Amino acid sequence: MIKVVLIGTGNVALQLFHTWRSAKEVEVIQVAGRSPEKLRSFSSFTSTTSINQVNPDADIYILAVSDDAVREVAMQLPVNDKLILHTAGNLPLDVFNKGQRSGVFYPLQTFSSSRRANFSEIPICIESKHKADLEQIRRLGLTLSEKVVEVSSDQRRYLHLAAVFANNFTNHLLKISQDILVEKELDFELLRPLIRETTSKVEELSPGEAQTGPARRSDTGTMDKHIDLLENELHKDIYRLISKSIQINYGNKL
Amino acid sequence: MIKVVLIGTGNVALQLFHTWRSAKEVEVIQVAGRSPEKLRSFSSFTSTTSINQVNPDADIYILAVSDDAVREVAMQLPVNDKLILHTAGNLPLDVFNKGQRSGVFYPLQTFSSSRRANFSEIPICIESKHKADLEQIRRLGLTLSEKVVEVSSDQRRYLHLAAVFANNFTNHLLKISQDILVEKELDFELLRPLIRETTSKVEELSPGEAQTGPARRSDTGTMDKHIDLLENELHKDIYRLISKSIQINYGNKL
Repeated sequence: MIKVVLIGTGNVALQLFHTWRSAKEVEVIQVAGRSPEKLRSFSSFTSTTSINQVNPDADIYILAVSDDAVREVAMQLPVNDKLILHTAGNLPLDVFNKGQRSGVFYPLQTFSSSRRANFSEIPICIESKHKADLEQIRRLGLTLSEKVVEVSSDQRRYLHLAAVFANNFTNHLLKISQDILVEKELDFELLRPLIRETTSKVEELSPGEAQTGPARRSDTGTMDKHIDLLENELHKDIYRLISKSIQINYGNKL
Repeated sequence: MIKVVLIGTGNVALQLFHTWRSAKEVEVIQVAGRSPEKLRSFSSFTSTTSINQVNPDADIYILAVSDDAVREVAMQLPVNDKLILHTAGNLPLDVFNKGQRSGVFYPLQTFSSSRRANFSEIPICIESKHKADLEQIRRLGLTLSEKVVEVSSDQRRYLHLAAVFANNFTNHLLKISQDILVEKELDFELLRPLIRETTSKVEELSPGEAQTGPARRSDTGTMDKHIDLLENELHKDIYRLISKSIQINYGNKL
């Protein structure tokens, strides 16, 4: 049994907590956070506390707090010689003090409080300087997912950057497309099969092979008409810029 | 039985042709095109011909040619009083001559030759000035899909624009994320669960509710680090612009 204290009450902490509630190999013995209100959603299930009063008897302390807070919270933790992990895509391992037993436990996924994560396929990117610690982190990862992979601090920040393009930015483009439809009283449902196909396609083809559309064909007539239709200047700029990037990518004339 | 002549040999024609091959209610009696080579992939299954020699005995002629060619090909067709349809998202109905029985048959999907389309869920957007013609187009649409919807020329161009954001542009962002991983010798497989979740999420939540990430949080520290990591100036600009659009969208400070 791995005893864990979760520090943080956001989406990552919430998803880890509820997944581990039904895991035999892990017990979350405590959740620590600043907000008494947010701690309340955990308190029916386990002990809750403020950050400077955490239970010192866990095996692993997981910091699921904002990037800015990781270093400070790690220093405040009243524990010695226990393994402390952060969950951030964009923070190096050396954000921790050299003397600390430390590591990284980065689940490569987007989490929302209203949607339960299924960790079984989510890559858990792990890192640690010490082999024994790395193995303990790997064991913890395997309680969630079959994909536990060692990723260096340098690689991890590129992975996080790529994830921003693949999720945050694509999702915002879906928001823009929804806004375009709503404005014309068209149902967003009409786009769902296309959105599903976009994802299904890249399970078979690479994104490079899957690319279609006016910019891929350098159909400047259609592109110009589209830019005219857009009312939002920022959306016009996004249209121009991504189209230009597509054209350059496929060696089309600009 | 609806007798159809398909004009064009690209992805749309190919997908329609192969789907209708196994449909009872439709017979594609001929495929017409300019390229003898491309016609060859149809010629084992049906009659093929050049555009100015099409069979005049069909009920419906479907122009699955490039936008620029629709008007000219429609004028060249040696048929009288037959229904002529185009399949373009971005062309109005009045691209046809007033005297022609005409309509629109726009399948809202991205097609690739290497991947067979499943039309059953694809919205077929139809339009015609005459009620009888519209009903015939609807019957044709229903041989492919349960979602046959009347969409005006004005609405359709916005639908096509929204589709460019939802498919072409999101796919290109996936290409950029793949390029970032390849550069650092990371496996694109690592991103697949995230890409799948991005799509699954918007089946439950709206894209606005599903938005996460540094720009959503206005985490300028992370955004600055990400821009530093990118080497391609165009990718830097795309990162800045979409992040700005997200921040404005959610009322964050810039």
